[in-house]
Amino acid sequence: MIVVMAAGASPEQIADVVTFVEHHGLHAHLSEGEDRTVIGVIGHEISEDLRAGFQNLSGVEDVVRITRPYKLAGRQFRQQDTEIRVGPVVIGGPELVVMAGPCAVENQAMLMETAHAVRAAGAGILRGGAFKPRTSPYTFQGLGLEGLRILEQARAATGLPVVTEVMTPTDVEAVAASADILQIGARNMQNFNLLAAVGETRVPALLKRGASNTLEEWLLSAEYILSRGNYAVMLCERGIRTFETATRNTLDLSCVPLLKEWSHLPVVVDPSHGTGRSALVTPMAVAAVAAGADALIIEVHPHPQEAWSDGPQSLAFPAFEALMRQVAAVAEAVGRPLARLESGPAASAGAVARG
Amino acid sequence: MIVVMAAGASPEQIADVVTFVEHHGLHAHLSEGEDRTVIGVIGHEISEDLRAGFQNLSGVEDVVRITRPYKLAGRQFRQQDTEIRVGPVVIGGPELVVMAGPCAVENQAMLMETAHAVRAAGAGILRGGAFKPRTSPYTFQGLGLEGLRILEQARAATGLPVVTEVMTPTDVEAVAASADILQIGARNMQNFNLLAAVGETRVPALLKRGASNTLEEWLLSAEYILSRGNYAVMLCERGIRTFETATRNTLDLSCVPLLKEWSHLPVVVDPSHGTGRSALVTPMAVAAVAAGADALIIEVHPHPQEAWSDGPQSLAFPAFEALMRQVAAVAEAVGRPLARLESGPAASAGAVARG
Amino acid sequence: MIVVMAAGASPEQIADVVTFVEHHGLHAHLSEGEDRTVIGVIGHEISEDLRAGFQNLSGVEDVVRITRPYKLAGRQFRQQDTEIRVGPVVIGGPELVVMAGPCAVENQAMLMETAHAVRAAGAGILRGGAFKPRTSPYTFQGLGLEGLRILEQARAATGLPVVTEVMTPTDVEAVAASADILQIGARNMQNFNLLAAVGETRVPALLKRGASNTLEEWLLSAEYILSRGNYAVMLCERGIRTFETATRNTLDLSCVPLLKEWSHLPVVVDPSHGTGRSALVTPMAVAAVAAGADALIIEVHPHPQEAWSDGPQSLAFPAFEALMRQVAAVAEAVGRPLARLESGPAASAGAVARG
Amino acid sequence: MIVVMAAGASPEQIADVVTFVEHHGLHAHLSEGEDRTVIGVIGHEISEDLRAGFQNLSGVEDVVRITRPYKLAGRQFRQQDTEIRVGPVVIGGPELVVMAGPCAVENQAMLMETAHAVRAAGAGILRGGAFKPRTSPYTFQGLGLEGLRILEQARAATGLPVVTEVMTPTDVEAVAASADILQIGARNMQNFNLLAAVGETRVPALLKRGASNTLEEWLLSAEYILSRGNYAVMLCERGIRTFETATRNTLDLSCVPLLKEWSHLPVVVDPSHGTGRSALVTPMAVAAVAAGADALIIEVHPHPQEAWSDGPQSLAFPAFEALMRQVAAVAEAVGRPLARLESGPAASAGAVARG
Repeated sequence: MIVVMAAGASPEQIADVVTFVEHHGLHAHLSEGEDRTVIGVIGHEISEDLRAGFQNLSGVEDVVRITRPYKLAGRQFRQQDTEIRVGPVVIGGPELVVMAGPCAVENQAMLMETAHAVRAAGAGILRGGAFKPRTSPYTFQGLGLEGLRILEQARAATGLPVVTEVMTPTDVEAVAASADILQIGARNMQNFNLLAAVGETRVPALLKRGASNTLEEWLLSAEYILSRGNYAVMLCERGIRTFETATRNTLDLSCVPLLKEWSHLPVVVDPSHGTGRSALVTPMAVAAVAAGADALIIEVHPHPQEAWSDGPQSLAFPAFEALMRQVAAVAEAVGRPLARLESGPAASAGAVARG
Repeated sequence: MIVVMAAGASPEQIADVVTFVEHHGLHAHLSEGEDRTVIGVIGHEISEDLRAGFQNLSGVEDVVRITRPYKLAGRQFRQQDTEIRVGPVVIGGPELVVMAGPCAVENQAMLMETAHAVRAAGAGILRGGAFKPRTSPYTFQGLGLEGLRILEQARAATGLPVVTEVMTPTDVEAVAASADILQIGARNMQNFNLLAAVGETRVPALLKRGASNTLEEWLLSAEYILSRGNYAVMLCERGIRTFETATRNTLDLSCVPLLKEWSHLPVVVDPSHGTGRSALVTPMAVAAVAAGADALIIEVHPHPQEAWSDGPQSLAFPAFEALMRQVAAVAEAVGRPLARLESGPAASAGAVARG
Repeated sequence: MIVVMAAGASPEQIADVVTFVEHHGLHAHLSEGEDRTVIGVIGHEISEDLRAGFQNLSGVEDVVRITRPYKLAGRQFRQQDTEIRVGPVVIGGPELVVMAGPCAVENQAMLMETAHAVRAAGAGILRGGAFKPRTSPYTFQGLGLEGLRILEQARAATGLPVVTEVMTPTDVEAVAASADILQIGARNMQNFNLLAAVGETRVPALLKRGASNTLEEWLLSAEYILSRGNYAVMLCERGIRTFETATRNTLDLSCVPLLKEWSHLPVVVDPSHGTGRSALVTPMAVAAVAAGADALIIEVHPHPQEAWSDGPQSLAFPAFEALMRQVAAVAEAVGRPLARLESGPAASAGAVARG
Repeated sequence: MIVVMAAGASPEQIADVVTFVEHHGLHAHLSEGEDRTVIGVIGHEISEDLRAGFQNLSGVEDVVRITRPYKLAGRQFRQQDTEIRVGPVVIGGPELVVMAGPCAVENQAMLMETAHAVRAAGAGILRGGAFKPRTSPYTFQGLGLEGLRILEQARAATGLPVVTEVMTPTDVEAVAASADILQIGARNMQNFNLLAAVGETRVPALLKRGASNTLEEWLLSAEYILSRGNYAVMLCERGIRTFETATRNTLDLSCVPLLKEWSHLPVVVDPSHGTGRSALVTPMAVAAVAAGADALIIEVHPHPQEAWSDGPQSLAFPAFEALMRQVAAVAEAVGRPLARLESGPAASAGAVARG
């Protein structure tokens, strides 16, 4: 940590900062520049709270952090990529994985139909919401536990592992007992009690980025899960909120290579929520693959115009098949072949973090 | 709702939209313009989900909502301002109320000292966090239940009602039994399970705006609480996230008069989180009062540089006293006198929504 | 245009709006819903200014535009893609074009070296700034006219057409006489006098998106150029400003397919400014190609750490060669082969808008 | 400047940075922490470009600037507030000044009527656009030179000095010969040629903040003007672009006290553009005064619904009179009385920067 004194700071103010440093068991290293003094603060654990304390000392202009606040999520902690096995597929490994399915589980028939269709088109994981976070209290909120049962049936029928959202700590046990991947939605990225509860399970987590959260905050939310012992965390970019209104969100693909540099965790991209317009889903899906995404998550619905939620961004089956063809071609071009499922039932889920 | 057809939409596409309208029990009203057809869709409850369905119909260019999605939170539902009595003060009435106290309850001594100081300076409500949402898992997370006990002691000693945050549904019962106002933090503005749980209580709620949420989303979150029967909801602006890095957030004061136009709920402003810099707290506090805020919530700490959290934005006692003097002057100028507590213990909390 | 009356609007207020409509030579079409009246306003030219006038009439809640404000830039005006020939290459045609070179022309030697290197690696156009818009008045502002002369020498030596920025109307004549493409920088996207001056030339224009401008505003800026008779306009995405600080800007790739839907103009992507970090340039370049970009523009420098400007986002020659290999592979995969220059001098520039 | 080495940087990488430092005539000051080395770089002028060069050296993780890049605009350069005399009023002095008038000069009659009305209500300066930057090429672009003539007539008739926008360097001479204050619009905040041209005049400048520009960039744009010798620069906040769509922009009032801390230049607030809704103008005007603004600039029109531009945010005369009454009360409360013009003609304009 570096404390930058104001240009006209007095010797007394500088001495007070040094005293404050030493009072907290740290070492101060003074460096006098042309017009101001800079104080390097050296020592192991300097908490965010202590750092903030420095900000309020008299004569201090700025306090600069020089280490990253996350540890387990960082490349410094683990050099090798984390690979997460979920039934027959591995996320974060050499192959690209596609997760697909409806926004919400609406009933058994539509989910079964969709599950078979996305498996046939090459998806490796089935998505579908049983608990739905909705902006308005007057819209469909999901089938809840009944939705989980339907997802289990679809998994049994197709062999596809299931990713589904969990919204609140008290539901974690039930969802973890049923799903293969626990999705934490964008609005819950900083629901710290939920993160802690998911961290206590050993079920892989898919942590969506909050619509206005920085990469650093996102990795700190992952840290909440990791620090409880659940090392199988995937990061899912789903668009950030900007001034642009032509798209539902602005999909930030540059986060993919940047997360790969900073972290060892797999990165998933959601072009459906990231754009909110079905016509943009395929171009952004292939762009995500080109940018280095480990997996995609795509909304597919038998009849998008009849969808109970997120219809405008869902693909009908033929459009999804076209997407898969284009994704396969680009994945090949970047040396990242698409994972292909064998016939037969799904193995049980499990996370394996290599290395 | 209005469906705008694309410029070259065919008669068949238009007919299909009309069929879709009537299939859902609604009425279509065609209006043919110079280069395109517009279809008014008339009928009572048109859900967001159904609206989205229209977006995916062939030949449709845009779907425009013409009614607001919230009901109980809107001025149309209630013309008169909602007033919320909390112990000796009323929020949303003719007087301005100031809530003040430390970011976090750190121990009994500092809270007591702060409670007496803010009461002496004219605050009407004591703030203090027992459960703290923190970006990093490695920072102080609050004293929890012990913090609630300390807050109760401070209330008993000073007569100040207490506002404190509740982070997760399972804590709602305990916090509601102790606190006079349940704060829902910005990161939890769309934690719908928490909103619902607070909606089941009859304890006044202070709902902070999410850092990247629109006014409409905020009012819909209020609607979650109102629709469960808890009508005592205050809206608290605490800054939104923008590209500007000089301040922690950008305090959006224009939301104050706009919320007053759209809604009957009281509006509170938090210039401490809204700026993140103690030097800006007082100017923005008086600006908020001038803009029409019903209440302020201010972070005060005996020794800001030693605070365990949010030190850089906390005011020491003398600075808070100066703030109160300036606030009183501006409140007077806008015809909104500062609420002054009588000596003696606080009455029990209760919400009264006039009219 | 649609005028949405407030829920409680009186018959007099509605009649006043109708009078106002007819007073401006337009037709009103009333549609009475369950709780409010909606008035369709029909007629050819409804200016933005007139539309704003409606907003202020008593009893009006909202005014909704249903046609796009740009004309010449839109797909409705021209169905076929605009192709722009610049010397030996065509932008917007079946082949992908790569523009490359230093941020600024620093001297003859470095530009020559870079021009030969990028041509050898497969670039089709040379970029280099002679006039540099710089945030601070104390940084290098470009070589000006001398820079143009050096660019001409590099063109003569390599056959690569040249794209360079013009910052102010009085320089348009000189830059247009020298360059093959006139770049309008992001900060000047709404410098309307400059747009008009470039519109008076017949030299192709590369119009960068402003860091906080919507797609619609961008197309309206293109409209300024088009409406003066210069039909050779390329749109260049170079990142938008968001709350994220890990990258210089957030590259919005979803604008590529959306612009292709709304407009016939070619779309160029600048991953150098779009990310500000050299390590992200190649992943985002290939992502842009996958998303459907017609061209890329890349900063390349012989010694990035010695660059006078934008060093952190510039690629050294070996990194640029690696980028070109990856771009070629992805371009092939999406059916968009990379344009390859023959040996020999460049033909003179000229714009051809097919169809 | 501080160079933060990566955690695993080698001794050779550190030595290379030191060599680079010394090669540029600067001094390096090493500080070895627990897990990384930090290098203080000491010396007078370290340009932004050189700083960027460090970023690209091998083993460097971050480069932290510790001095502000502007000089003449900063408090360090001048401790006392700059006061700018414009005819009979002083901006930045003890009194609050209100500038008012129509968005655009539409014709002589409406400007005269407005000028008399705003003067009667207490305005000290007349605003009115002759050259109008408009997003669309198809909307009214202002009366140009004829507009300047009309403004001169209004000044002669009322004694009010005139502020009007100049859009391009070639117009600076004509506008400077006519107007008392040269307004530089938000879209031109980084039109560096225009800034330089205004810097060459000695006419006071009102520099609006770009809709997505930081305070630091804004002060650097002011620096362009100041560094040419024109010291009479006012900074005008007019709202920034955020995700919120309920208002045209988000008025950032926290910039007022922050600019006062960082800079000696007067700060003006424009609540008309800042909100885009006439109902919000008065609350935000009084809030701006409470926050410490030196002046306000308000759009007033005899018949807002007939305005050729910006009607929805313009105030009719009675609303402006009500605004002035509320502004006067709050100005009084914060010890900043409203400037009152004497009867009689305006003195000639001139800038006086005290101290």
